[in-house]
Amino acid sequence: MQRTGRRTGVWLVGARGAVATTAVVGAAAIRAGLAELTGCVTACEGFPGDRLPALDDLVFGGHDLHGFPLTDRAEELAAGRVFPAGLLEPLEKDLAAADQEIREGYVGGEGRGRGPGGAAVSQEEAARALAADIVDFRERLELARVVVIHVASTEAPVRPRPEHENLAALEKALSAGADVLPPSSLYAYAAFSAGCPYVDFTPSTGARLPALDELARQRGLPYAGRDAKTGETLMQSALAPMFAARALRVRAWSGTNLLGGGDGATLVAPGPAASKTMSKRRGLGHLLDDRVEGTVHIDCVPSLGEWKTAWDHVAFEGFLGVPMSMQFTWQGCDSALAAPLVLDLARLTAAAHAAGLAGPLGALGFFFKDPAGTDELGQAAQYQALRSFAAALGGHA
Amino acid sequence: MQRTGRRTGVWLVGARGAVATTAVVGAAAIRAGLAELTGCVTACEGFPGDRLPALDDLVFGGHDLHGFPLTDRAEELAAGRVFPAGLLEPLEKDLAAADQEIREGYVGGEGRGRGPGGAAVSQEEAARALAADIVDFRERLELARVVVIHVASTEAPVRPRPEHENLAALEKALSAGADVLPPSSLYAYAAFSAGCPYVDFTPSTGARLPALDELARQRGLPYAGRDAKTGETLMQSALAPMFAARALRVRAWSGTNLLGGGDGATLVAPGPAASKTMSKRRGLGHLLDDRVEGTVHIDCVPSLGEWKTAWDHVAFEGFLGVPMSMQFTWQGCDSALAAPLVLDLARLTAAAHAAGLAGPLGALGFFFKDPAGTDELGQAAQYQALRSFAAALGGHA
Amino acid sequence: MQRTGRRTGVWLVGARGAVATTAVVGAAAIRAGLAELTGCVTACEGFPGDRLPALDDLVFGGHDLHGFPLTDRAEELAAGRVFPAGLLEPLEKDLAAADQEIREGYVGGEGRGRGPGGAAVSQEEAARALAADIVDFRERLELARVVVIHVASTEAPVRPRPEHENLAALEKALSAGADVLPPSSLYAYAAFSAGCPYVDFTPSTGARLPALDELARQRGLPYAGRDAKTGETLMQSALAPMFAARALRVRAWSGTNLLGGGDGATLVAPGPAASKTMSKRRGLGHLLDDRVEGTVHIDCVPSLGEWKTAWDHVAFEGFLGVPMSMQFTWQGCDSALAAPLVLDLARLTAAAHAAGLAGPLGALGFFFKDPAGTDELGQAAQYQALRSFAAALGGHA
Amino acid sequence: MQRTGRRTGVWLVGARGAVATTAVVGAAAIRAGLAELTGCVTACEGFPGDRLPALDDLVFGGHDLHGFPLTDRAEELAAGRVFPAGLLEPLEKDLAAADQEIREGYVGGEGRGRGPGGAAVSQEEAARALAADIVDFRERLELARVVVIHVASTEAPVRPRPEHENLAALEKALSAGADVLPPSSLYAYAAFSAGCPYVDFTPSTGARLPALDELARQRGLPYAGRDAKTGETLMQSALAPMFAARALRVRAWSGTNLLGGGDGATLVAPGPAASKTMSKRRGLGHLLDDRVEGTVHIDCVPSLGEWKTAWDHVAFEGFLGVPMSMQFTWQGCDSALAAPLVLDLARLTAAAHAAGLAGPLGALGFFFKDPAGTDELGQAAQYQALRSFAAALGGHA
Repeated sequence: MQRTGRRTGVWLVGARGAVATTAVVGAAAIRAGLAELTGCVTACEGFPGDRLPALDDLVFGGHDLHGFPLTDRAEELAAGRVFPAGLLEPLEKDLAAADQEIREGYVGGEGRGRGPGGAAVSQEEAARALAADIVDFRERLELARVVVIHVASTEAPVRPRPEHENLAALEKALSAGADVLPPSSLYAYAAFSAGCPYVDFTPSTGARLPALDELARQRGLPYAGRDAKTGETLMQSALAPMFAARALRVRAWSGTNLLGGGDGATLVAPGPAASKTMSKRRGLGHLLDDRVEGTVHIDCVPSLGEWKTAWDHVAFEGFLGVPMSMQFTWQGCDSALAAPLVLDLARLTAAAHAAGLAGPLGALGFFFKDPAGTDELGQAAQYQALRSFAAALGGHA
Repeated sequence: MQRTGRRTGVWLVGARGAVATTAVVGAAAIRAGLAELTGCVTACEGFPGDRLPALDDLVFGGHDLHGFPLTDRAEELAAGRVFPAGLLEPLEKDLAAADQEIREGYVGGEGRGRGPGGAAVSQEEAARALAADIVDFRERLELARVVVIHVASTEAPVRPRPEHENLAALEKALSAGADVLPPSSLYAYAAFSAGCPYVDFTPSTGARLPALDELARQRGLPYAGRDAKTGETLMQSALAPMFAARALRVRAWSGTNLLGGGDGATLVAPGPAASKTMSKRRGLGHLLDDRVEGTVHIDCVPSLGEWKTAWDHVAFEGFLGVPMSMQFTWQGCDSALAAPLVLDLARLTAAAHAAGLAGPLGALGFFFKDPAGTDELGQAAQYQALRSFAAALGGHA
Repeated sequence: MQRTGRRTGVWLVGARGAVATTAVVGAAAIRAGLAELTGCVTACEGFPGDRLPALDDLVFGGHDLHGFPLTDRAEELAAGRVFPAGLLEPLEKDLAAADQEIREGYVGGEGRGRGPGGAAVSQEEAARALAADIVDFRERLELARVVVIHVASTEAPVRPRPEHENLAALEKALSAGADVLPPSSLYAYAAFSAGCPYVDFTPSTGARLPALDELARQRGLPYAGRDAKTGETLMQSALAPMFAARALRVRAWSGTNLLGGGDGATLVAPGPAASKTMSKRRGLGHLLDDRVEGTVHIDCVPSLGEWKTAWDHVAFEGFLGVPMSMQFTWQGCDSALAAPLVLDLARLTAAAHAAGLAGPLGALGFFFKDPAGTDELGQAAQYQALRSFAAALGGHA
Repeated sequence: MQRTGRRTGVWLVGARGAVATTAVVGAAAIRAGLAELTGCVTACEGFPGDRLPALDDLVFGGHDLHGFPLTDRAEELAAGRVFPAGLLEPLEKDLAAADQEIREGYVGGEGRGRGPGGAAVSQEEAARALAADIVDFRERLELARVVVIHVASTEAPVRPRPEHENLAALEKALSAGADVLPPSSLYAYAAFSAGCPYVDFTPSTGARLPALDELARQRGLPYAGRDAKTGETLMQSALAPMFAARALRVRAWSGTNLLGGGDGATLVAPGPAASKTMSKRRGLGHLLDDRVEGTVHIDCVPSLGEWKTAWDHVAFEGFLGVPMSMQFTWQGCDSALAAPLVLDLARLTAAAHAAGLAGPLGALGFFFKDPAGTDELGQAAQYQALRSFAAALGGHA
């Protein structure tokens, strides 16, 4: 892949959000030798990542609804202890460059959605405009390819519609001027239309509709998702298989997530909260038993800022039915946990595209709560699958 | 194996201790249909355990230094909430039968060790007597084989001696009347001399001397150990690989273990504590990095009885060096966590013997903090290895 | 008071519930010398409790909707690890005696409430029947007095009505055949009508209506409540004043309560949950600041049985605004935490009645989340007030 | 007191340490309107602190062994997340002024101690020089008075000597050229000799010798200490009285403290660790029962920097002996917890001096693990005593 000598584009939907900004700042800091590769799975010593595009060869752009400068967002995050003091100053030029490549996106609504400048647009028009932005980015910067990654706010679960079931029905509805897709899926449609692989980083619907899967396969495009594991679920996916392997009977798994910042505020709204908790509970039921008791809470605690705390309590039975328990508390910085995974996913998905793979990338399930293309939800097994995938990619190059 | 129609003996060194008593009570309760198989790895639905001797075909005996009846110890454990109320009454006959098969063991000391009745004996005499007890048990009850499992109190780390290095030197020293083995190793020597496989369930030296490995291989005997994972280390072996796979940099892993009962009292003595903490730290260094900071404490808290609590705190760095943390608390009943593993190890080691395997059983590393015959310390990888091993055993039968 | 030589009755509304059963078993066990006084505040060494009726002089009776024998409930609790093994056998006679004194109670509903045998009754008729049961208990057993304590299931918050505002309006409505009281308040009305002091042990409305306060004062009767502190709130009332005294700024206080058994099942219904969480949050707002962020969750986890776990997370700021945190986990047996307080409240309220006090007993606020007759919510200050009250009671005797 | 119009000096022994630096930075930030009063007990709304010297009227100086500039230390702390980004820049002048008032101190050793420039000095000479530094500070800056506060590294417990028992014996030994005091006590001796009140902020011996108490009383000087409560012990002093008041029987209280930075490194040395853990356990024994089981650990975890984590586990029994537990985790910034207390103690001790009080200030026990002049160790009772003391001070002014 390196042979092409061309760089890889990373197009972030939600490009001025905390996760995107941290990814851009981090990539620039690593390139400048100001930060280590901590948290980047594919850059880890021993990981078979040598056939992936180099971190230094990633170029960033994206869509966002807001217009404030990326540097302002970065300053906010620095004040919130996401970056070490003094990191941003030497990276100003990189942030300005990324800022130049952010275009105004599409926002859905009760009636007609709105495109750049707030103009009412049909979804077909919107998709065309979004795709054009991405194509322009790819061509103008002479990029080998562009991976589109959705890191915008979580949406409510989508209500099923016949137009979601196959591509012909979907395109017919769109060309008739109907608005039938949630915004995250419109972005996926635009990405595929532009010939770009797509990653669902959030629990939103995105590419997870039969019609879009059909489109991806038709165009020979891989996609991955959804809902990156960055805390509670990461722990669960490491611990639930342990209980199962030890034949310890988990009776109840209860969890409380305290989130500050934007993520918390979004996620406590009933719709997005439903998406998130469905995505969270699915894994436990699958890894253990659907009858495991317990509730998962997501609370917005604004004073926590970019930080989050998850407490999980597991009530289990041991030999002769003796009741025992385990609890953990995970305290992390949300955007610092998510951002390196964005870089990993960009590299892996780009390489999969280069290797000619299409459809859901089950081997990337390691990163997700609700992985497409695989039934494996245990952390260790997912990691083995990921390594094998990365090692095998070379064969296609 | 089932074809022989003969039962398998389980010879417990420390047969009146909490772990042994719980194993005997539990096996009887399961046989009587009074308890489920919770905590028994090899009896778990989906585990390829059909070529292992049946749980119902295990027969118990052992050595101990103490003379109080097994039922008294069982009553004590019931009062300490290890068994549900009313479990013991219908099992009286089984406990009495096991009681009948317990012989007085060997105790080391500053000068000459002591055998049955407190008589001073040389280690060679002692080994002969211990082996004779086991052989008598096997022949009298017409057992297919006997697995010897050491569940007695943890010893201090052993000081290396030239006699430990090869079998000839060891046997020469013993026949010269010298006492050169720690008691756990004397039991291993006796077991091998009696033609029995051996399992180190504790951190004591046991079979882990080159001279004893030589003996085991010479006699075609398998062995396994050491130091069963039942709490903190079990969690560590599931979580440390997760941090490593995610490229999160663990800076410090600190642990405090509060233990009641006999185990706590033994383990706070400086010698045994050294054995235990060495065994505990080894895994973290191996799975993560030897420079990980942190101390592990083992405190005796008598009022906790058979219960234990472990608290671990992990300080780690994420992307851009942001400091984060994870902590867990594990609250379990020590003997209820250990006892089903005794049954698993008896079944697996018996099957390995039947299959003609000799030397350390690395595939049983799943059960141990400091596994013999393997370098793999991650929980999930160990579980895969165990399953493959169990599935393959059939081929030998 | 001891001079009267007469015993004190404790009339438990919800007499076959876990809390009532544990109180009856515990009082009997203490009388029989089979248990210590652990958890009994007023029996604690150094507490000025010598003017209170003796624990041994308490006699139990009550109302309940269910008919199963008290011994069955006690066996259930023993199986759930609330009592040590073997405690119940020697207490059979005491449980049978208490069982004899339990009468069928009143249950509200959508339409007309139901009395004994399920017969539809007006609230006026019901109150008369309930009061008659209590009077019969007092006279037949020649008791000095009877304290009525409500330990039945939590009700939803009551919708205000004009009939609640004064006694005349209430009695007018009742005699007109209207059902205007929630069941807990009907019991309070019956208790006062029977000349008995009343204690609200739960968050239900009970005596907390102006009309009932008027009745209590008119009859010269003391009352106390409501919602006993037995875990999370107990901790909060000890810790919130510490943060305040240290000028540490609490930004968010979040809590999750995992409850098994009947209490959990009742409390997750929206109505009772509202009562409980209102009662819980009130204290934090009062002790700290109403702007403290955070949510309190009450989850039913049936497999926890009689046990409960509360996890609280406190985000606070220290000097120069540095963010810090504290978290605690409380793991207790609900009925064992509540039952001794029932005994304490019976003794204290009886003594207050003997001393001629009427109206809300603010000095008993120590026991409650939402205390009547006081604004003090800090644990230590409440304890001082309680001691002074108990010490002063003697003066009235 | 404000009437004098003169400022109050705060002389910090260990003036370039983390606690002292944070106190100086914080006082300057508050004066400049850049920080709030969070964490300052005596500046809290509602605290009767109006007769205390104003925070703005405190002037800082002190002794230290090290020569690096205060601003360097402050930068280090800012990098360690003790200060918000950008706080230091506007405070440069204040730090430089405090830096000007730091003199080289005295360091003990195996043989003769060393004074400024590393010259060997007798303790009598050293005391004279130290006192002269303080007097010069007071006179040159025309201060109303100077409070000396010891915030230097913790020393090992002192071995009792006859010279500690009375002032005459001490002064005789000193004038004979003998070195009989630990450094912290030499500083107390110098402070009293200079006519200054003294505060022991650490567990070191300081003023806690009969000979020094005699000197303080002779000169009419108050003193306070020792070992400020800033985390685990603060929690314990709030929670232990709660268990006692509720008659819950604490069986074991175990604690693990993870400390980074200088404090951690000092405290794991056996001597200082002994001082610290003695100071920590004393309170629990006093508040609960000396037979409470449990160990307290202090671990140095360098990667935690200025942050500390304490985990405590409390095993207690409730009604009928049912075992329950509570655990807490306190995560705080050590110097940010300590520094505001330095300011509080300076203000309170200065006011006590102005009011003519001499000897140990028991009412300041609120701040200390091992308070001089009082037996009260419960947090709430200590706070009441502190408020009464502060309110009464006015009467003396």
